[in-house]
Amino acid sequence: MTTATLQSTAACASTLEAYEQLLTHTREAGTLGAVSAVLGWDQETMMPPGGVDYRAKQFALLARIDHQMSTNPRIGEWLAQCESDHAFMGGGSAESAQVREIRRDYDRATRLPEKLVSELAEISSKAQHEWAAARKASDFARFRPWLEQLVKLNRAKASCLGIPAGGEPWDALADTYEPGCTAASVTKVFTPLREQLQRLLRDLAAGSKQPSNRFNETALPVEAQMKFARMVVQSIGFDFQRGRLDTSTHPFCGGSHCGDVRMTTRFTETCLNDALGSTMHEAGHGMYEQGLPSTAIGTPLGSAVSLGIHESQSRLWENQVGRSRSFWTWCAPQLTSCFGSATSAFTLDELYGAANIVEPGFIRVDADEATYNMHVMVRFELERLLIDGSLDPKDLPAEWNRRYQEYLNVTVPDDRRGCLQDVHWSMGAFGYFPTYTLGTLYSAQFYDAAKRAIPDLEAGFAAGEFKPLLDWLNREIHAHGRRYLPGELCERVTGSPLSSECYLSYLEGKLRPLYGA
Amino acid sequence: MTTATLQSTAACASTLEAYEQLLTHTREAGTLGAVSAVLGWDQETMMPPGGVDYRAKQFALLARIDHQMSTNPRIGEWLAQCESDHAFMGGGSAESAQVREIRRDYDRATRLPEKLVSELAEISSKAQHEWAAARKASDFARFRPWLEQLVKLNRAKASCLGIPAGGEPWDALADTYEPGCTAASVTKVFTPLREQLQRLLRDLAAGSKQPSNRFNETALPVEAQMKFARMVVQSIGFDFQRGRLDTSTHPFCGGSHCGDVRMTTRFTETCLNDALGSTMHEAGHGMYEQGLPSTAIGTPLGSAVSLGIHESQSRLWENQVGRSRSFWTWCAPQLTSCFGSATSAFTLDELYGAANIVEPGFIRVDADEATYNMHVMVRFELERLLIDGSLDPKDLPAEWNRRYQEYLNVTVPDDRRGCLQDVHWSMGAFGYFPTYTLGTLYSAQFYDAAKRAIPDLEAGFAAGEFKPLLDWLNREIHAHGRRYLPGELCERVTGSPLSSECYLSYLEGKLRPLYGA
Repeated sequence: MTTATLQSTAACASTLEAYEQLLTHTREAGTLGAVSAVLGWDQETMMPPGGVDYRAKQFALLARIDHQMSTNPRIGEWLAQCESDHAFMGGGSAESAQVREIRRDYDRATRLPEKLVSELAEISSKAQHEWAAARKASDFARFRPWLEQLVKLNRAKASCLGIPAGGEPWDALADTYEPGCTAASVTKVFTPLREQLQRLLRDLAAGSKQPSNRFNETALPVEAQMKFARMVVQSIGFDFQRGRLDTSTHPFCGGSHCGDVRMTTRFTETCLNDALGSTMHEAGHGMYEQGLPSTAIGTPLGSAVSLGIHESQSRLWENQVGRSRSFWTWCAPQLTSCFGSATSAFTLDELYGAANIVEPGFIRVDADEATYNMHVMVRFELERLLIDGSLDPKDLPAEWNRRYQEYLNVTVPDDRRGCLQDVHWSMGAFGYFPTYTLGTLYSAQFYDAAKRAIPDLEAGFAAGEFKPLLDWLNREIHAHGRRYLPGELCERVTGSPLSSECYLSYLEGKLRPLYGA
Repeated sequence: MTTATLQSTAACASTLEAYEQLLTHTREAGTLGAVSAVLGWDQETMMPPGGVDYRAKQFALLARIDHQMSTNPRIGEWLAQCESDHAFMGGGSAESAQVREIRRDYDRATRLPEKLVSELAEISSKAQHEWAAARKASDFARFRPWLEQLVKLNRAKASCLGIPAGGEPWDALADTYEPGCTAASVTKVFTPLREQLQRLLRDLAAGSKQPSNRFNETALPVEAQMKFARMVVQSIGFDFQRGRLDTSTHPFCGGSHCGDVRMTTRFTETCLNDALGSTMHEAGHGMYEQGLPSTAIGTPLGSAVSLGIHESQSRLWENQVGRSRSFWTWCAPQLTSCFGSATSAFTLDELYGAANIVEPGFIRVDADEATYNMHVMVRFELERLLIDGSLDPKDLPAEWNRRYQEYLNVTVPDDRRGCLQDVHWSMGAFGYFPTYTLGTLYSAQFYDAAKRAIPDLEAGFAAGEFKPLLDWLNREIHAHGRRYLPGELCERVTGSPLSSECYLSYLEGKLRPLYGA
């Protein structure tokens, strides 16, 4: 199908030749992926309603061509030839990292039988419709048969992918999103984190003061909010020559490559902090994409490491930067010049406080920094049990609600605001949720390293200087693409394996004073 | 590569089976074409500058996959099986029309050697850059070597495609855009048309009065113009549930299928008529696309007949409707409610007159209804001679300027405003220009038939009723896709073969009274 495939029908004369052909072929599959990404963005932002059905056909065709390209047996031959050349593979070269990662992708693609892939695609497409209807009606019984099928198919998927030695089926699924991630490693980090977060939340609730939420209740014209959000993300370093910002129902960051990053956000009349947070979040994703090396477009070294690392970049800009006092020091006069008297009366303390309100609730996407991870933990524990076979899908709502009561001390009123709130499982995505919290922990650990590396980092923010941080992230993280595995990257950048220490110390250091706790 | 291809590796058991497989394969190639169309629209409207290089790679990959799909030898086998079944092919069925048109596309695709296709793509891509620079500098010598190469490659292309018996090389090229079109048939229509237009232009210039241009010199805010243009195209029948209107440097109508039509327009502070004309023009194209049968998406019966017929739809709404007195009767109060006092003082006579100013000039895209076709004739005559080999590219400017003097009585000041003004030849598109005038003639002939078929058609326009016309066009023209060849369609719809009669009588009937001539 591809030039590379057609050019060569016999073993290559040299490892270098095999490697070049492997890379050419990989780049082409990447180009096709980029096409799908633009169509995906278009569907959410620009496409008229009449385009829905035929767009699905376009995606299906591209997916089929992509599958054929990704499982082409020539890839296996080129890989084998490269891998058998120990001189070529040794020394941790960029080339050997490309081969390692292309192998990873190829093995994953070829291990899944086409029948299972198309069954999963079909069932999850239907399940998403059913889930949407079930959520609307708060009717778990309607979704349950679909969930059962999806769990069954995902267990089959896990066993095709191969369960790591000493591991469990969930690990094989999680590895798709976060290479090397296992339930055991997640539990090791999550268990102490949960206990400490619960203590912190108890203390904050009993604190001697409470930041004012008044700024978050101030109505501001949506058009001015868009202008403001655009100014902020441009100031922190998102390059509009190589990207766009539009609106969509659910904010996301897509697009096709480092030269063309498409992110979206959304606005409500109140509150600006929602829009600002989600725009800075997506800009964090976007700046990661823009920071990937253009010379490696469409290959592993031109791609993001993992969902967890991707999330670390969005969280870092949204939270460590966007909810810091120094950021708001810079932001306050900008607010006034954009919104005039509607915001000029707020003090820096009020603005900073309003960005850091903690309030346990039922809904993950509305959660604050401190409670957010509890939502993720509930989902991780439950999906692990579902995939493991030890939780019957029919018991999901009860188990969900019990945990919300225990971890967050809230009573879930109905399944719509309970176990039906997220789209992920209906999409067949199990093993995805923990990457949100892993990203949060990575963000704090990376930020801690950045503060050590960059003198007066936060004083710079107060003066509107965000470039030193972006340059550091570009150099330390973005430029490597998938050269290192997530854990490896973390140790290289921060000097330590991932833990919740930096995160907890960051969070406690910020929230305890604000709440007098 | 495609499911259809993989499913079947031997002759089909029945004609129907062969036909079904042929159609499945054709639909898939159509789906891929729709993907390219969305990317093309995106490139002109949404893509940030940083996306340019990689977008070119995406197009190249899709074009290569498309070529492989379109020249798959299985198509030839399926076609042969269908064609040999005389019962299946007889009686002028929809199926036999599909087979006829797929045969046409397949033969054209397989007759061109891949080397020639890629050489043409490469040279015309470079030539477009050189042309843009040459036009800017008004430096024909810079473009000349590229024009020479393009002429040479297009002569080779014509001989690969096959010159019809008794025809000439140009015919083979024109057939791409307008099936069945030959230089001889075009000349037969153009020669008397030119003489009559020249007489009309002389008479108008000597007329006893002159419509006022004042409305075209009235500055109006661009945002309000956009709102107005949107209201107008919605009123005439463009369906925004199945399409979009955006802005781009050069207006066009693209998008992927009848459920998702993307058109663009452009605005200047003055004049609204430019924007209105180009928006209604593109909406005419867009409503044709929206009127194609959704059941036949991606196949010939779901596609437009030819560029000439496509252009007839755009011209009809732009000119026969948009420059009519009855349209302006409806439009006048709409103008006032949109632009207020800026336009309320204009009388209906002034508005109608301003939409019908005739003024010979050098630039095709700025030309009025009466002089436009002279621009096309100059290009047709010259490209015919170039492809024929009887005009040396070096003599192009002199021959161009001589004809402008003779046909339009204007002295071309420089090559930028002369033979370098259009992009078409630099794109390697020879045989394209006449479709603009053929479309103009078709539009008048179709409109004449519509007036006969629909009682009080124009009285309806004055009351804002455009649906009867669109319904008629949907039924008589759009619904057929490529079922009939252009000439056949014209005779079916109007009862006569194409001629310039209706057009001249329409034009004279409108312009002579306005100019007192």
